[in-house]
Amino acid sequence: MSSTVVVKQTKGEETRAQILAAAVEQASRSGFESLTIGTLAEKTGMSKSGLFAHFGSKTDLQIAALDESARVFTETVFLPALKAPRGVKRLRALFENWLVWTRSVNLPGGCPIDAASREYDHRPGPMRDAVIERQGLVSRELAKTVQLAIDTGELKASTDSQQVVFEFFAIVLAYYRVEFVYDKEQAMKRARLAFDRMLDQYRS
Amino acid sequence: MSSTVVVKQTKGEETRAQILAAAVEQASRSGFESLTIGTLAEKTGMSKSGLFAHFGSKTDLQIAALDESARVFTETVFLPALKAPRGVKRLRALFENWLVWTRSVNLPGGCPIDAASREYDHRPGPMRDAVIERQGLVSRELAKTVQLAIDTGELKASTDSQQVVFEFFAIVLAYYRVEFVYDKEQAMKRARLAFDRMLDQYRS
Repeated sequence: MSSTVVVKQTKGEETRAQILAAAVEQASRSGFESLTIGTLAEKTGMSKSGLFAHFGSKTDLQIAALDESARVFTETVFLPALKAPRGVKRLRALFENWLVWTRSVNLPGGCPIDAASREYDHRPGPMRDAVIERQGLVSRELAKTVQLAIDTGELKASTDSQQVVFEFFAIVLAYYRVEFVYDKEQAMKRARLAFDRMLDQYRS
Repeated sequence: MSSTVVVKQTKGEETRAQILAAAVEQASRSGFESLTIGTLAEKTGMSKSGLFAHFGSKTDLQIAALDESARVFTETVFLPALKAPRGVKRLRALFENWLVWTRSVNLPGGCPIDAASREYDHRPGPMRDAVIERQGLVSRELAKTVQLAIDTGELKASTDSQQVVFEFFAIVLAYYRVEFVYDKEQAMKRARLAFDRMLDQYRS
Protein backbone atom coordinates (compact mmCIF):
# COMPACT_ATOMS: atom_id res chain seq x y z
CA MET A 1 0.00 0.00 0.00
CA SER A 2 1.31 3.37 -0.88
CA SER A 3 0.90 6.21 1.53
CA THR A 4 -0.30 9.52 0.25
CA VAL A 5 0.35 12.84 1.82
CA VAL A 6 -2.77 14.91 1.53
CA VAL A 7 -2.14 18.60 1.79
CA LYS A 8 -5.35 20.13 2.98
CA GLN A 9 -6.17 23.45 1.46
CA THR A 10 -8.29 25.93 3.33
CA LYS A 11 -11.34 27.23 1.49
CA GLY A 12 -9.50 30.52 0.94
CA GLU A 13 -6.46 28.79 -0.57
CA GLU A 14 -8.70 26.73 -2.79
CA THR A 15 -10.48 29.80 -4.10
CA ARG A 16 -7.17 31.55 -4.68
CA ALA A 17 -5.89 28.54 -6.62
CA GLN A 18 -9.01 28.54 -8.79
CA ILE A 19 -8.68 32.24 -9.53
CA LEU A 20 -5.01 31.80 -10.44
CA ALA A 21 -5.71 28.88 -12.76
CA ALA A 22 -8.30 31.02 -14.56
CA ALA A 23 -5.88 33.95 -14.66
CA VAL A 24 -3.08 31.87 -16.20
CA GLU A 25 -5.48 30.49 -18.80
CA GLN A 26 -6.63 33.99 -19.71
CA ALA A 27 -3.09 35.41 -19.81
CA SER A 28 -2.09 32.54 -22.10
CA ARG A 29 -4.84 33.49 -24.55
CA SER A 30 -5.08 37.25 -24.28
CA GLY A 31 -2.00 38.44 -22.44
CA PHE A 32 -1.40 39.72 -18.93
CA GLU A 33 -2.71 43.20 -19.74
CA SER A 34 -6.14 41.61 -20.19
CA LEU A 35 -6.07 40.52 -16.53
CA THR A 36 -8.21 42.90 -14.56
CA ILE A 37 -10.32 42.28 -11.49
CA GLY A 38 -13.31 42.94 -13.76
CA THR A 39 -12.56 40.48 -16.58
CA LEU A 40 -11.56 37.80 -14.09
CA ALA A 41 -14.69 38.26 -11.99
CA GLU A 42 -16.66 37.67 -15.18
CA LYS A 43 -14.61 34.60 -16.11
CA THR A 44 -14.74 32.95 -12.68
CA GLY A 45 -18.28 34.01 -11.78
CA MET A 46 -16.99 35.54 -8.54
CA SER A 47 -17.79 38.98 -7.23
CA LYS A 48 -15.34 41.81 -7.78
CA SER A 49 -15.15 42.38 -4.04
CA GLY A 50 -14.35 38.69 -3.52
CA LEU A 51 -11.48 38.98 -6.00
CA PHE A 52 -10.25 42.16 -4.36
CA ALA A 53 -10.00 40.24 -1.08
CA HIS A 54 -7.45 37.93 -2.77
CA PHE A 55 -5.62 40.44 -4.98
CA GLY A 56 -5.55 44.05 -3.97
CA SER A 57 -4.67 45.41 -7.39
CA LYS A 58 -4.32 44.57 -11.06
CA THR A 59 -0.53 44.42 -10.64
CA ASP A 60 -0.82 42.01 -7.66
CA LEU A 61 -3.03 39.79 -9.77
CA GLN A 62 -0.69 39.94 -12.79
CA ILE A 63 2.38 39.10 -10.75
CA ALA A 64 0.58 36.27 -8.96
CA ALA A 65 -0.48 34.88 -12.35
CA LEU A 66 3.10 35.13 -13.63
CA ASP A 67 4.36 33.29 -10.54
CA GLU A 68 1.73 30.62 -10.99
CA SER A 69 2.75 30.22 -14.66
CA ALA A 70 6.37 29.87 -13.58
CA ARG A 71 5.40 27.28 -10.94
CA VAL A 72 3.48 25.15 -13.46
CA PHE A 73 6.30 25.55 -15.99
CA THR A 74 8.89 24.32 -13.48
CA GLU A 75 6.70 21.42 -12.49
CA THR A 76 5.97 20.38 -16.09
CA VAL A 77 9.26 21.13 -17.83
CA PHE A 78 12.13 21.06 -15.32
CA LEU A 79 11.14 18.53 -12.66
CA PRO A 80 10.38 15.60 -15.03
CA ALA A 81 13.65 16.27 -16.90
CA LEU A 82 15.56 15.55 -13.71
CA LYS A 83 14.65 11.88 -14.14
CA ALA A 84 16.86 11.79 -17.26
CA PRO A 85 20.57 11.20 -16.61
CA ARG A 86 22.61 14.39 -16.41
CA GLY A 87 24.16 15.47 -19.68
CA VAL A 88 22.78 15.68 -23.21
CA LYS A 89 19.92 13.31 -22.34
CA ARG A 90 18.63 15.66 -19.67
CA LEU A 91 19.09 18.67 -21.95
CA ARG A 92 17.07 16.91 -24.62
CA ALA A 93 14.35 15.93 -22.13
CA LEU A 94 14.13 19.59 -21.11
CA PHE A 95 13.84 20.63 -24.73
CA GLU A 96 11.09 18.09 -25.48
CA ASN A 97 9.12 19.07 -22.36
CA TRP A 98 9.50 22.76 -23.23
CA LEU A 99 7.97 22.32 -26.67
CA VAL A 100 4.82 20.62 -25.46
CA TRP A 101 4.29 21.85 -21.91
CA THR A 102 1.37 24.17 -22.69
CA ARG A 103 -0.44 21.28 -24.32
CA SER A 104 0.18 18.95 -21.40
CA VAL A 105 -1.30 21.45 -18.92
CA ASN A 106 -4.11 22.43 -21.27
CA LEU A 107 -3.21 26.01 -22.08
CA PRO A 108 -4.47 26.26 -25.67
CA GLY A 109 -3.51 29.95 -25.77
CA GLY A 110 0.19 29.07 -25.72
CA CYS A 111 3.00 29.85 -23.30
CA PRO A 112 1.97 32.60 -20.86
CA ILE A 113 5.59 33.47 -20.05
CA ASP A 114 6.27 34.03 -23.75
CA ALA A 115 3.21 36.30 -23.82
CA ALA A 116 4.45 38.25 -20.79
CA SER A 117 7.93 38.64 -22.30
CA ARG A 118 6.59 40.22 -25.48
CA GLU A 119 4.08 42.36 -23.60
CA TYR A 120 6.49 43.88 -21.11
CA ASP A 121 9.91 43.73 -22.73
CA HIS A 122 9.84 47.42 -23.62
CA ARG A 123 7.41 48.59 -20.93
CA PRO A 124 9.18 49.58 -17.68
CA GLY A 125 7.37 48.76 -14.46
CA PRO A 126 6.88 45.99 -11.91
CA MET A 127 5.74 43.42 -14.50
CA ARG A 128 8.81 43.97 -16.65
CA ASP A 129 11.02 43.59 -13.57
CA ALA A 130 9.16 40.42 -12.58
CA VAL A 131 9.48 38.94 -16.09
CA ILE A 132 13.21 39.72 -16.28
CA GLU A 133 13.81 38.20 -12.85
CA ARG A 134 12.00 34.96 -13.76
CA GLN A 135 13.66 34.79 -17.18
CA GLY A 136 17.01 35.13 -15.45
CA LEU A 137 16.17 32.27 -13.12
CA VAL A 138 15.17 29.99 -15.99
CA SER A 139 18.31 30.93 -17.95
CA ARG A 140 20.51 30.07 -15.00
CA GLU A 141 18.80 26.70 -14.49
CA LEU A 142 19.11 25.93 -18.20
CA ALA A 143 22.78 26.99 -18.19
CA LYS A 144 23.40 24.55 -15.31
CA THR A 145 21.90 21.73 -17.37
CA VAL A 146 24.18 22.68 -20.28
CA GLN A 147 27.15 22.81 -17.90
CA LEU A 148 26.41 19.25 -16.75
CA ALA A 149 26.60 18.12 -20.39
CA ILE A 150 30.02 19.78 -20.59
CA ASP A 151 31.06 18.13 -17.30
CA THR A 152 30.09 14.68 -18.59
CA GLY A 153 32.38 15.33 -21.56
CA GLU A 154 29.57 15.07 -24.10
CA LEU A 155 29.93 18.72 -25.07
CA LYS A 156 33.32 20.35 -25.71
CA ALA A 157 35.04 21.92 -22.71
CA SER A 158 35.23 25.17 -24.69
CA THR A 159 31.42 25.33 -25.02
CA ASP A 160 29.97 28.68 -23.96
CA SER A 161 26.94 27.55 -21.99
CA GLN A 162 25.27 30.98 -22.30
CA GLN A 163 25.48 30.72 -26.08
CA VAL A 164 23.81 27.30 -25.96
CA VAL A 165 21.09 28.81 -23.74
CA PHE A 166 20.51 31.55 -26.34
CA GLU A 167 20.29 29.04 -29.20
CA PHE A 168 18.05 26.70 -27.18
CA PHE A 169 15.61 29.56 -26.45
CA ALA A 170 15.73 30.59 -30.09
CA ILE A 171 14.51 27.21 -31.29
CA VAL A 172 11.74 27.04 -28.69
CA LEU A 173 10.51 30.53 -29.59
CA ALA A 174 10.51 29.77 -33.30
CA TYR A 175 8.58 26.58 -32.59
CA TYR A 176 5.98 28.51 -30.60
CA ARG A 177 5.56 30.88 -33.55
CA VAL A 178 5.33 28.36 -36.35
CA GLU A 179 3.32 25.61 -34.67
CA PHE A 180 0.21 27.64 -35.48
CA VAL A 181 1.23 28.36 -39.07
CA TYR A 182 2.49 24.94 -40.15
CA ASP A 183 0.93 21.86 -38.70
CA LYS A 184 2.36 20.84 -35.35
CA GLU A 185 4.19 17.77 -36.67
CA GLN A 186 6.01 19.84 -39.27
CA ALA A 187 6.93 22.46 -36.67
CA MET A 188 8.16 19.75 -34.31
CA LYS A 189 10.31 18.22 -37.06
CA ARG A 190 11.94 21.60 -37.80
CA ALA A 191 12.56 22.30 -34.13
CA ARG A 192 14.15 18.89 -33.48
CA LEU A 193 16.34 19.16 -36.55
CA ALA A 194 17.51 22.62 -35.45
CA PHE A 195 18.21 21.30 -31.95
CA ASP A 196 20.22 18.32 -33.23
CA ARG A 197 22.26 20.53 -35.57
CA MET A 198 22.87 23.02 -32.81
CA LEU A 199 24.09 20.36 -30.37
CA ASP A 200 26.28 18.70 -33.02
CA GLN A 201 28.36 21.86 -33.20
CA TYR A 202 29.19 21.67 -29.52
CA ARG A 203 29.81 17.92 -29.23
CA SER A 204 33.26 16.70 -28.23
CA MET B 1 20.87 68.05 -61.42
CA SER B 2 18.73 65.29 -60.07
CA SER B 3 15.03 65.32 -60.66
CA THR B 4 12.68 64.46 -57.85
CA VAL B 5 9.26 63.02 -58.22
CA VAL B 6 7.00 64.56 -55.63
CA VAL B 7 3.98 62.44 -54.85
CA LYS B 8 1.37 64.83 -53.58
CA GLN B 9 -0.80 63.52 -50.78
CA THR B 10 -4.30 64.80 -50.37
CA LYS B 11 -5.20 66.12 -46.94
CA GLY B 12 -7.17 62.92 -46.31
CA GLU B 13 -4.23 60.69 -47.23
CA GLU B 14 -1.95 62.73 -45.01
CA THR B 15 -4.28 62.36 -42.05
CA ARG B 16 -4.63 58.65 -42.67
CA ALA B 17 -0.83 58.28 -42.79
CA GLN B 18 -0.51 60.14 -39.48
CA ILE B 19 -3.11 57.94 -37.82
CA LEU B 20 -1.39 54.79 -39.10
CA ALA B 21 2.03 55.91 -37.89
CA ALA B 22 0.54 56.48 -34.43
CA ALA B 23 -1.25 53.13 -34.58
CA VAL B 24 1.94 51.23 -35.47
CA GLU B 25 3.81 52.97 -32.68
CA GLN B 26 1.09 52.03 -30.18
CA ALA B 27 0.84 48.42 -31.42
CA SER B 28 4.61 48.12 -31.07
CA ARG B 29 4.41 49.15 -27.40
CA SER B 30 1.09 47.75 -26.24
CA GLY B 31 -0.06 45.27 -28.86
CA PHE B 32 -2.75 45.38 -31.52
CA GLU B 33 -5.53 44.64 -29.05
CA SER B 34 -4.84 48.02 -27.49
CA LEU B 35 -5.77 49.70 -30.80
CA THR B 36 -9.27 51.06 -30.48
CA ILE B 37 -10.83 54.11 -32.05
CA GLY B 38 -10.97 55.54 -28.52
CA THR B 39 -7.32 55.07 -27.50
CA LEU B 40 -6.11 56.28 -30.87
CA ALA B 41 -8.32 59.38 -30.81
CA GLU B 42 -6.70 60.22 -27.48
CA LYS B 43 -3.20 59.59 -28.82
CA THR B 44 -3.59 61.60 -32.03
CA GLY B 45 -5.80 64.36 -30.60
CA MET B 46 -8.37 63.68 -33.32
CA SER B 47 -12.07 63.23 -32.80
CA LYS B 48 -13.55 59.74 -32.64
CA SER B 49 -15.86 60.59 -35.53
CA GLY B 50 -12.87 61.75 -37.58
CA LEU B 51 -11.16 58.42 -36.95
CA PHE B 52 -14.33 56.54 -37.81
CA ALA B 53 -14.31 58.28 -41.19
CA HIS B 54 -10.93 56.65 -41.91
CA PHE B 55 -11.44 53.27 -40.24
CA GLY B 56 -14.92 51.92 -39.85
CA SER B 57 -14.12 49.41 -37.12
CA LYS B 58 -11.47 48.27 -34.68
CA THR B 59 -10.62 45.34 -36.98
CA ASP B 60 -10.20 47.66 -40.00
CA LEU B 61 -7.85 49.78 -37.95
CA GLN B 62 -5.87 46.76 -36.69
CA ILE B 63 -5.45 45.28 -40.15
CA ALA B 64 -4.46 48.65 -41.62
CA ALA B 65 -1.86 49.01 -38.85
CA LEU B 66 -0.55 45.52 -39.56
CA ASP B 67 -0.28 46.35 -43.28
CA GLU B 68 1.52 49.56 -42.48
CA SER B 69 3.95 47.66 -40.21
CA ALA B 70 4.59 45.19 -43.03
CA ARG B 71 5.16 48.05 -45.50
CA VAL B 72 7.71 49.76 -43.25
CA PHE B 73 9.36 46.39 -42.53
CA THR B 74 9.75 45.64 -46.25
CA GLU B 75 11.12 49.10 -46.90
CA THR B 76 13.60 48.96 -44.03
CA VAL B 77 14.67 45.31 -44.06
CA PHE B 78 14.18 43.82 -47.52
CA LEU B 79 14.69 46.66 -49.99
CA PRO B 80 18.10 47.84 -48.70
CA ALA B 81 19.31 44.19 -48.63
CA LEU B 82 18.76 44.00 -52.40
CA LYS B 83 21.79 46.25 -52.81
CA ALA B 84 24.00 43.45 -51.49
CA PRO B 85 25.08 40.84 -54.06
CA ARG B 86 22.83 37.78 -54.18
CA GLY B 87 23.99 34.92 -51.98
CA VAL B 88 25.25 34.79 -48.42
CA LYS B 89 26.08 38.53 -48.47
CA ARG B 90 22.45 39.41 -49.15
CA LEU B 91 21.24 36.92 -46.55
CA ARG B 92 23.54 38.49 -43.99
CA ALA B 93 22.40 42.00 -44.94
CA LEU B 94 18.82 40.89 -44.42
CA PHE B 95 19.72 39.44 -41.03
CA GLU B 96 21.50 42.60 -39.90
CA ASN B 97 18.64 44.84 -41.06
CA TRP B 98 16.13 42.56 -39.33
CA LEU B 99 17.85 42.87 -35.96
CA VAL B 100 17.87 46.66 -35.91
CA TRP B 101 14.93 47.72 -38.04
CA THR B 102 12.68 48.86 -35.17
CA ARG B 103 15.44 51.11 -33.94
CA SER B 104 16.05 52.62 -37.36
CA VAL B 105 12.37 53.55 -37.73
CA ASN B 106 12.07 54.65 -34.10
CA LEU B 107 9.73 52.00 -32.72
CA PRO B 108 11.02 51.73 -29.15
CA GLY B 109 8.27 49.24 -28.32
CA GLY B 110 9.88 46.58 -30.52
CA CYS B 111 8.71 44.72 -33.60
CA PRO B 112 4.93 45.15 -34.09
CA ILE B 113 4.69 42.04 -36.27
CA ASP B 114 6.27 39.98 -33.50
CA ALA B 115 3.67 41.47 -31.13
CA ALA B 116 0.83 40.58 -33.50
CA SER B 117 2.13 37.03 -33.91
CA ARG B 118 2.10 36.35 -30.19
CA GLU B 119 -1.24 38.09 -29.70
CA TYR B 120 -3.15 36.26 -32.40
CA ASP B 121 -1.37 32.95 -32.87
CA HIS B 122 -4.01 31.05 -30.90
CA ARG B 123 -6.94 33.42 -31.42
CA PRO B 124 -8.95 32.61 -34.57
CA GLY B 125 -10.34 35.56 -36.51
CA PRO B 126 -9.45 38.08 -39.20
CA MET B 127 -6.31 39.32 -37.43
CA ARG B 128 -4.92 35.80 -37.08
CA ASP B 129 -5.61 35.17 -40.78
CA ALA B 130 -3.94 38.46 -41.69
CA VAL B 131 -0.88 37.70 -39.55
CA ILE B 132 -0.50 34.20 -41.02
CA GLU B 133 -0.81 35.53 -44.57
CA ARG B 134 1.87 38.16 -44.02
CA GLN B 135 4.15 35.74 -42.19
CA GLY B 136 3.82 33.38 -45.15
CA LEU B 137 4.80 36.15 -47.54
CA VAL B 138 7.89 37.05 -45.52
CA SER B 139 8.87 33.35 -45.23
CA ARG B 140 8.64 32.92 -48.98
CA GLU B 141 10.76 36.02 -49.66
CA LEU B 142 13.33 34.87 -47.12
CA ALA B 143 13.35 31.36 -48.63
CA LYS B 144 14.07 32.91 -52.04
CA THR B 145 17.08 34.72 -50.60
CA VAL B 146 18.33 31.44 -49.13
CA GLN B 147 17.77 29.72 -52.47
CA LEU B 148 19.94 32.33 -54.20
CA ALA B 149 22.76 31.47 -51.78
CA ILE B 150 22.32 27.83 -52.79
CA ASP B 151 22.30 28.82 -56.50
CA THR B 152 25.56 30.75 -56.12
CA GLY B 153 27.08 27.56 -54.70
CA GLU B 154 27.90 29.15 -51.35
CA LEU B 155 25.45 26.88 -49.53
CA LYS B 156 25.28 23.12 -50.16
CA ALA B 157 22.90 22.00 -52.91
CA SER B 158 21.24 19.71 -50.35
CA THR B 159 20.33 22.67 -48.11
CA ASP B 160 16.67 22.71 -47.10
CA SER B 161 15.86 26.39 -47.51
CA GLN B 162 12.76 26.12 -45.27
CA GLN B 163 14.92 24.80 -42.46
CA VAL B 164 17.28 27.77 -42.86
CA VAL B 165 14.24 30.08 -42.75
CA PHE B 166 13.16 28.43 -39.47
CA GLU B 167 16.60 28.80 -37.91
CA PHE B 168 16.97 32.38 -39.18
CA PHE B 169 13.65 33.36 -37.56
CA ALA B 170 14.66 31.57 -34.39
CA ILE B 171 17.76 33.70 -33.95
CA VAL B 172 15.90 36.95 -34.68
CA LEU B 173 13.16 36.08 -32.17
CA ALA B 174 15.66 35.19 -29.46
CA TYR B 175 17.46 38.46 -30.13
CA TYR B 176 14.22 40.41 -29.76
CA ARG B 177 13.66 38.71 -26.40
CA VAL B 178 17.10 39.11 -24.90
CA GLU B 179 18.02 42.57 -26.15
CA PHE B 180 15.98 43.97 -23.28
CA VAL B 181 17.46 41.60 -20.69
CA TYR B 182 21.15 41.75 -21.61
CA ASP B 183 22.57 44.92 -23.01
CA LYS B 184 22.09 45.31 -26.75
CA GLU B 185 25.74 44.73 -27.65
CA GLN B 186 25.79 41.42 -25.79
CA ALA B 187 22.52 40.33 -27.44
CA MET B 188 23.88 41.32 -30.86
CA LYS B 189 27.06 39.33 -30.26
CA ARG B 190 25.06 36.20 -29.33
CA ALA B 191 22.77 36.59 -32.35
CA ARG B 192 25.65 37.03 -34.82
CA LEU B 193 27.52 34.07 -33.38
CA ALA B 194 24.39 31.91 -33.69
CA PHE B 195 23.89 33.10 -37.27
CA ASP B 196 27.50 32.35 -38.27
CA ARG B 197 27.36 28.89 -36.67
CA MET B 198 24.06 28.18 -38.36
CA LEU B 199 25.33 29.19 -41.80
CA ASP B 200 28.58 27.26 -41.35
CA GLN B 201 26.57 24.04 -41.22
CA TYR B 202 25.09 24.67 -44.62
CA ARG B 203 28.18 25.94 -46.41
CA SER B 204 29.54 23.98 -49.36
